[in-house]
Amino acid sequence: MLVNGKNFESIWRENESGAVKIIDQRWLPHKFSIVNITSCQETMTAIRDMWVRGAPLIGVTAAYGIAMAMEEDPSDQNLISAGSLLNSARPTAVNLAWAVTRMQNVLNETPQDKRAGKALNLADSMAKEDIAINRRIGEHGAKVIEDIFRQKSDGDPVRILTHCNAGWLATVDRGTATAPIYEAFEKNVPIEVWVDETRPRNQGAALTTWELMHNQIPHTLIVDNAGGHLMQNGLVDLCIVGSDRTTGTGDVCNKIGTYLKALAAKDNNIPFYVALPSSTIDQSLSNGISEIPIENREQHEVTHIQGKNEKGELINVQICPDGVKASNPAFDVTPRRLVTGLITENGIK
Amino acid sequence: MLVNGKNFESIWRENESGAVKIIDQRWLPHKFSIVNITSCQETMTAIRDMWVRGAPLIGVTAAYGIAMAMEEDPSDQNLISAGSLLNSARPTAVNLAWAVTRMQNVLNETPQDKRAGKALNLADSMAKEDIAINRRIGEHGAKVIEDIFRQKSDGDPVRILTHCNAGWLATVDRGTATAPIYEAFEKNVPIEVWVDETRPRNQGAALTTWELMHNQIPHTLIVDNAGGHLMQNGLVDLCIVGSDRTTGTGDVCNKIGTYLKALAAKDNNIPFYVALPSSTIDQSLSNGISEIPIENREQHEVTHIQGKNEKGELINVQICPDGVKASNPAFDVTPRRLVTGLITENGIK
Repeated sequence: MLVNGKNFESIWRENESGAVKIIDQRWLPHKFSIVNITSCQETMTAIRDMWVRGAPLIGVTAAYGIAMAMEEDPSDQNLISAGSLLNSARPTAVNLAWAVTRMQNVLNETPQDKRAGKALNLADSMAKEDIAINRRIGEHGAKVIEDIFRQKSDGDPVRILTHCNAGWLATVDRGTATAPIYEAFEKNVPIEVWVDETRPRNQGAALTTWELMHNQIPHTLIVDNAGGHLMQNGLVDLCIVGSDRTTGTGDVCNKIGTYLKALAAKDNNIPFYVALPSSTIDQSLSNGISEIPIENREQHEVTHIQGKNEKGELINVQICPDGVKASNPAFDVTPRRLVTGLITENGIK
Repeated sequence: MLVNGKNFESIWRENESGAVKIIDQRWLPHKFSIVNITSCQETMTAIRDMWVRGAPLIGVTAAYGIAMAMEEDPSDQNLISAGSLLNSARPTAVNLAWAVTRMQNVLNETPQDKRAGKALNLADSMAKEDIAINRRIGEHGAKVIEDIFRQKSDGDPVRILTHCNAGWLATVDRGTATAPIYEAFEKNVPIEVWVDETRPRNQGAALTTWELMHNQIPHTLIVDNAGGHLMQNGLVDLCIVGSDRTTGTGDVCNKIGTYLKALAAKDNNIPFYVALPSSTIDQSLSNGISEIPIENREQHEVTHIQGKNEKGELINVQICPDGVKASNPAFDVTPRRLVTGLITENGIK
């Protein structure tokens, strides 16, 4: 998608050098920084420390991490340990383990001297595949938005609430929750997006607004507390969020707070859709609440907030008294009964 | 309640000078600042700019504002215009209008040369009355907490989630939502409080944690997104929040985000109580969602956050790209169907 009028993907290989490049998302929206990832170890750090984030992008990044590991040492032992290292970076998103396993399965069948090249090609394919999947998610989801627009007699924009960033920055391109938005917008459906700021890391405030702004989609930032009130007052037509892991039965694990919005949508008869690549569906699970491990992140993310000061410097400020204890679960589970439909590359169900 | 081991109220008259003093809450928890309020105009500013906040405290502060106006000019005209000035400061909390009207009714029956003294005495009485009311709210509410504790076979603490600050800082003393907590804790019921940070102004992170810390109540700070997840996982026994205005039919207008927590409590069969002085019940209203005016505050509160930098200075940081539009409704309405009980000074219903 566009950044300052120029097309970008969130991870790519430079044509000449072949270097793997990412947008270091830790500094957005205040600084647009592109960095090289040069080793499997560094890939793990980039995932763990959230230079890149978002389930689909994590998967593709991990695939490149395996490719770098194979360049360093293509042994069976290293294929196993590189996978373990990458899997250890984040516990919740299933795409990470899915991508690592997919790479390992193919490379296990590949002679060691061919593994580095094969791995790089497969990682490239997975990146392309992600974009194609998101295109298809967008096409299916845009129909929902177009239907809602047709039902509005007043020609007013379709008002869509989204939580966190399931945008192109969370994928290789187009995004999952945003793909239907971009698709419908390109078909001239008027749209306004309510962007939940999404504490503690504020990916909505920092990333989703930045994406939408650069791609000309009208949007308004709100605190996470506000969505219910907007829904009660008829100001939301539709919710679309992403998913980090979805059970075979359709329970959706997504960024903390998603469940609260789904409850409010249900209470106000507002459609609540989840857009996801089918690779985030974990068929081995049937009960999201009891079976999906929820990452508990550092207290610091709750007690402090990153932002730009008056001088334009990125700093952290503390919002509570010294010594306060905080709890920081990063995801919650929205039961299938609250979900109107899962939008995947294969359609809506 | 205690601050650094010493008892304070949130507004009081100094014994010798008679000066009205408040805790300037804008700088908490980072700075404990006491200031004098010296005129009706300044009282309006203190309410509007949230040096003091919380429905019960706003009411008592406005009463002192009327008293100062009567000292300046005890005419009928000034009694009317002082009331209008104070009422204009905040639109949602009914206590403000309630306190102003109560003062005006009494002073209308008082000769002009006696109005200043009478007004001051009445404001003093209203402050004392608020404390007595909160004591009774605490006694009624503590029974709910004690009952839950008795039902827990393991002797574990009763885990109470609260939103925003309906603590002693929102009243003259004891608080509304916190009164049952302080009362039960004084009766040796083990308690742990989940404190919602409560964006955008973070009164939970800044004020409720500070209150509880100084009064030795165990507590954990969470982002507003986390409560639903905690409830789903059996980590919340009870919710207690305050109210800025309650309809005669029991719909509760409280800080934005309250409705989302009430939905989650309902979905998980967790009792959801609202603690309030009966003066916040507006008998003239029957439908909270359509009838209660919701204050829309400045965008800046959403796009920026106040906190303490590494040097200990209080500053604002910007959390989104330059130029992002934000919407900032300050309250929402929780329908009576989601409320287990209203705890007032007269009991629970």
